[in-house]
Amino acid sequence: MTDSAVLSLAKDLIGRPSVTPIDEGCQELMISRLEAIGFSIERLVFEDTTNLWARRGTEAPLFAFAGHTDVVPSGPVEQWHTPPFEPTVIDGYLHGRGAADMKGSLAAMVIAAERFVAENPDHKGSIAFLITSDEEGPFINGTTRVVDTLVERNEIIDMCIVGEPSSTHAVGDVVKNGRRGSITGDVIIKGIQGHVAYPQLARNPIHQALPALAELAATQWDQGNAYFPPTSFQIPNVASGTGASNVIPGDFHVQFNLRFSTESTVDDIKSRIHSVLDAHGLEYDLAWTFSGHPFLTDTGTLLDAVVKAVDEVNHQKPELLTTGGTSDGRFIAQMGTQVIELGPVNATIHKVNECVKIADLEKLTDMYQKVLEKALA
Amino acid sequence: MTDSAVLSLAKDLIGRPSVTPIDEGCQELMISRLEAIGFSIERLVFEDTTNLWARRGTEAPLFAFAGHTDVVPSGPVEQWHTPPFEPTVIDGYLHGRGAADMKGSLAAMVIAAERFVAENPDHKGSIAFLITSDEEGPFINGTTRVVDTLVERNEIIDMCIVGEPSSTHAVGDVVKNGRRGSITGDVIIKGIQGHVAYPQLARNPIHQALPALAELAATQWDQGNAYFPPTSFQIPNVASGTGASNVIPGDFHVQFNLRFSTESTVDDIKSRIHSVLDAHGLEYDLAWTFSGHPFLTDTGTLLDAVVKAVDEVNHQKPELLTTGGTSDGRFIAQMGTQVIELGPVNATIHKVNECVKIADLEKLTDMYQKVLEKALA
Repeated sequence: MTDSAVLSLAKDLIGRPSVTPIDEGCQELMISRLEAIGFSIERLVFEDTTNLWARRGTEAPLFAFAGHTDVVPSGPVEQWHTPPFEPTVIDGYLHGRGAADMKGSLAAMVIAAERFVAENPDHKGSIAFLITSDEEGPFINGTTRVVDTLVERNEIIDMCIVGEPSSTHAVGDVVKNGRRGSITGDVIIKGIQGHVAYPQLARNPIHQALPALAELAATQWDQGNAYFPPTSFQIPNVASGTGASNVIPGDFHVQFNLRFSTESTVDDIKSRIHSVLDAHGLEYDLAWTFSGHPFLTDTGTLLDAVVKAVDEVNHQKPELLTTGGTSDGRFIAQMGTQVIELGPVNATIHKVNECVKIADLEKLTDMYQKVLEKALA
Repeated sequence: MTDSAVLSLAKDLIGRPSVTPIDEGCQELMISRLEAIGFSIERLVFEDTTNLWARRGTEAPLFAFAGHTDVVPSGPVEQWHTPPFEPTVIDGYLHGRGAADMKGSLAAMVIAAERFVAENPDHKGSIAFLITSDEEGPFINGTTRVVDTLVERNEIIDMCIVGEPSSTHAVGDVVKNGRRGSITGDVIIKGIQGHVAYPQLARNPIHQALPALAELAATQWDQGNAYFPPTSFQIPNVASGTGASNVIPGDFHVQFNLRFSTESTVDDIKSRIHSVLDAHGLEYDLAWTFSGHPFLTDTGTLLDAVVKAVDEVNHQKPELLTTGGTSDGRFIAQMGTQVIELGPVNATIHKVNECVKIADLEKLTDMYQKVLEKALA
């Protein structure tokens, strides 16, 4: 039996070991297919990152597929049942690093575009592909820089499907119509080092910080809303001490990370945290790392198109969620773009033996094609 | 000018680089002096540790000098003004590792014994030396094993002067007539590891532990008493986290150390800590390391003798304190012994450029001799 179009392309992509930020020729593979159906191609290389901006048409609305060709490392190869960069079909599943995150989605996007263009050579608006090789890495030279380039020349994406694996049990059971924001704080609480036998000569920064940290951990930041769970605060890392049991440490490092809803702002969060630390009389240095604003697509053409397309394929509407980690959708949404994430089941992503159900790739191709039809036909 | 007896012997001891647990011939130097004045010698070698038990006389009361020939490492030699193991006199101070902790004391003890025996060849009771080369190390094969040996044969020390540097500004301004107990707890608080974006699937052990730790840090364990400051609780070390800002850690390591007065017992302390951890519903493993019971010598012949001896030399009575770290006195006190620590100024101990005032060594020799006279003449 010959491989279907989407399976064949997905295999070709998985066969290229494009561990972040290496593209390993994946984008050229996509380019040859897209050029053949009338896309104009722009290769945007920034530092170690390979990016692609491909567009068919010049009119509005501008609809884009967004995704990445890079994958996370395979992890321990001996734990894989098949070689991670040799695409292998077993019992209806395609195995290989990137099968679900997100080379399967890239193949489905290309095939969907080919079929749509074949049936609608004179579609309204424009179709684009925004592809990067730095989504799994530090995301400095990837989508964010392509977006900067587009914004500079006022080329604004109106609607965008991100191919991240959004689904839980079956493709399309969940689409992500937004994501929480993320911010990390690294605080050094300062005390005075000394001998535990002479506590009156020292000041233990751990003791000083405990009530403030307990208060922060118990804080209700907001109630969330119809689309977002409440903002959550977590302490992922703490460290203090010399290792000796008789030394009171001089400082205490605490890191916290907040995943925040659209009910809180970065400035709110920062100011509330400073207030708690100050109210407890702590002496501290606090450095912030901001990873992204929250975004939400709660109405509009794209959301309607996605919900209908999924329903037509699955006979079941998708659940709309904003849970989970961040994605490059946060950078694209900053243009004012409607952004929806729709992709395969995420159960095996970033794990050994990553795989995707072949039938789901076919369904995903159909869903993408139907979205194009509803948005641009 | 010829060196005095105590200075000469102190120099000979400092010249031997007896970094713990190495004795480097220091005890043999003492043995040759003590044998010459009628001490019977017992060399007690346990594993890597050299110990000496020397006794003159067979009658009660048994008075002992206790101390150690080992020293802590020199630390960065380039920060020393003089080579650490070359005894050097500068402006009336003897410099070298161990000058204050406690080779100066050992020299003073030997010279005091020589003078006392010369004047009182038929003294009542017995004089002994309990010397180890493992006081600065793990104190497993040192004083504690010698004490075990003595207890086994029912050879009980009635009075003991430990030569630890007890003084603050001038020799004899402070003597330690007791020490707090010390116990360390290492607790692993168990949570469930997970992604910060999905806190509902994880359980952050840091968050769970914070209120319990804040309660422990704020606890008043006891009020102390006339001799002891209140029991103090310190958290010297904490560690948790994978280093990644997006991972909720699976466990949280907290170490605490208590220095406790005679108003609290080990069992009290353990049970109160377990109660707090249990009351907060924590899942944890807790391992205890017990370093020593508190002891106190608040009355008796030895205390009277020490106070008078210091007063006669200094024209000022010593302050009696129980503050500071632990010493081998805690092991000796378990025999029911009256124990007092009397030694040089501790300002430079364990530091680079350790030194002792030569005049203080002469005074210390006089004090030790006077104590012998008051206790045994």
